[in-house]
Amino acid sequence: MAQQERAVRTRKAILTAAGEVFDEVGYEAATISTILQRAKVTKGALYFHFASKEELAQAVLTQQLTGLPKVPERKLALQQGLDEALLLAHMLASGDPLVRGSVRLTVEQGSPHDGLDRQVPMAGWIEHNTEILTLARDNGELLPGVDVVAAAQMFVGAFTGVQILSKLMTGRADLVERVANLQRHLMAGIAVPAVLVQLDFSPERSARVYEEAVGAGRQAEPLGVD
Amino acid sequence: MAQQERAVRTRKAILTAAGEVFDEVGYEAATISTILQRAKVTKGALYFHFASKEELAQAVLTQQLTGLPKVPERKLALQQGLDEALLLAHMLASGDPLVRGSVRLTVEQGSPHDGLDRQVPMAGWIEHNTEILTLARDNGELLPGVDVVAAAQMFVGAFTGVQILSKLMTGRADLVERVANLQRHLMAGIAVPAVLVQLDFSPERSARVYEEAVGAGRQAEPLGVD
Repeated sequence: MAQQERAVRTRKAILTAAGEVFDEVGYEAATISTILQRAKVTKGALYFHFASKEELAQAVLTQQLTGLPKVPERKLALQQGLDEALLLAHMLASGDPLVRGSVRLTVEQGSPHDGLDRQVPMAGWIEHNTEILTLARDNGELLPGVDVVAAAQMFVGAFTGVQILSKLMTGRADLVERVANLQRHLMAGIAVPAVLVQLDFSPERSARVYEEAVGAGRQAEPLGVD
Repeated sequence: MAQQERAVRTRKAILTAAGEVFDEVGYEAATISTILQRAKVTKGALYFHFASKEELAQAVLTQQLTGLPKVPERKLALQQGLDEALLLAHMLASGDPLVRGSVRLTVEQGSPHDGLDRQVPMAGWIEHNTEILTLARDNGELLPGVDVVAAAQMFVGAFTGVQILSKLMTGRADLVERVANLQRHLMAGIAVPAVLVQLDFSPERSARVYEEAVGAGRQAEPLGVD
């Protein structure tokens, strides 16, 4: 294994362990030593990659959006956005530690001076959803008069809360169903009827989208394709 | 001042101080001594009302729904639900400490063994929204086929997340506007057109609804009306 590849794996192992610990106890209570034990790496290796707990948490926050498997391009931009929401719901529900830890870090207010920039993942999600909705508008998928930035903020905000509620009430057992239901209602307010009837909101779709996204990433890697 | 009335005021002062402290630093970092200083009451008075920090936090959680001023009855049940959402947004945005502290307690995951039952306020909101939507259905305000329990969960979950996002990105400066926008989109998916066009989603409405609800409470008290 080349040195660079080993470094990438070590970094991923540290991030995953950190995600687990942040998910379990939150930022304040998490310690570097617990993360070290979980990641099975040396203190030197951890500090080579991350100078502090804060830097580690910030990296977990940053990869919330960039680290997700990519949903292959859909004919309808709105199906793309819907599938990305189903993918994230599937990963949260099935226990992906990095996604769970990152989401907990994002929604916790924390102490006023913990130095974490929680706006990073949220701003990323809003920007990404704005791009998808802009594409949908250019494709003629949106009703006239839809404010794409306001709609993007609404999708991100509503998803955030629906996942919190599902975690609290059912330990995320009904998360995929709740997200599918939310998407169905929100899309009804922005999509033209001819597009709306084509969208597939079925909760069962989420696991298929995940397999497809992970599979596409695996195939793409050797070719160096994004 | 009668002894009973004094006790009610002391209890309220303690709850408000606790709400402030929970909002500022979260449950874990909050201490009874900080709450005592803030409430300007004796330790004996506090322990007369609440046996522990946990009991105090649970009381803050419980009054999240029951402690809100009542929105006077509207002709349309959906306007009632919409006005209650605007009222809560107004109180969160304008800095009501008890509401803010209670909401932070609700959405924080906390440590696995802190003993707080965060389902209480969420279950209360879902039940209350289910009642309003059931009334709306009985009035003929809903489109056929709307699942009122699923819709109630969606309203509660989406509100939760939209307020978190607004707090994170703008310190709640755009909260009322974001909630009005969310309600406009969600209502479009459940209301019959003849009702939808009658609903008033204007953000400016929120302050008026608050004044009206607080005023109605003041007038009603001497008459012993709920």
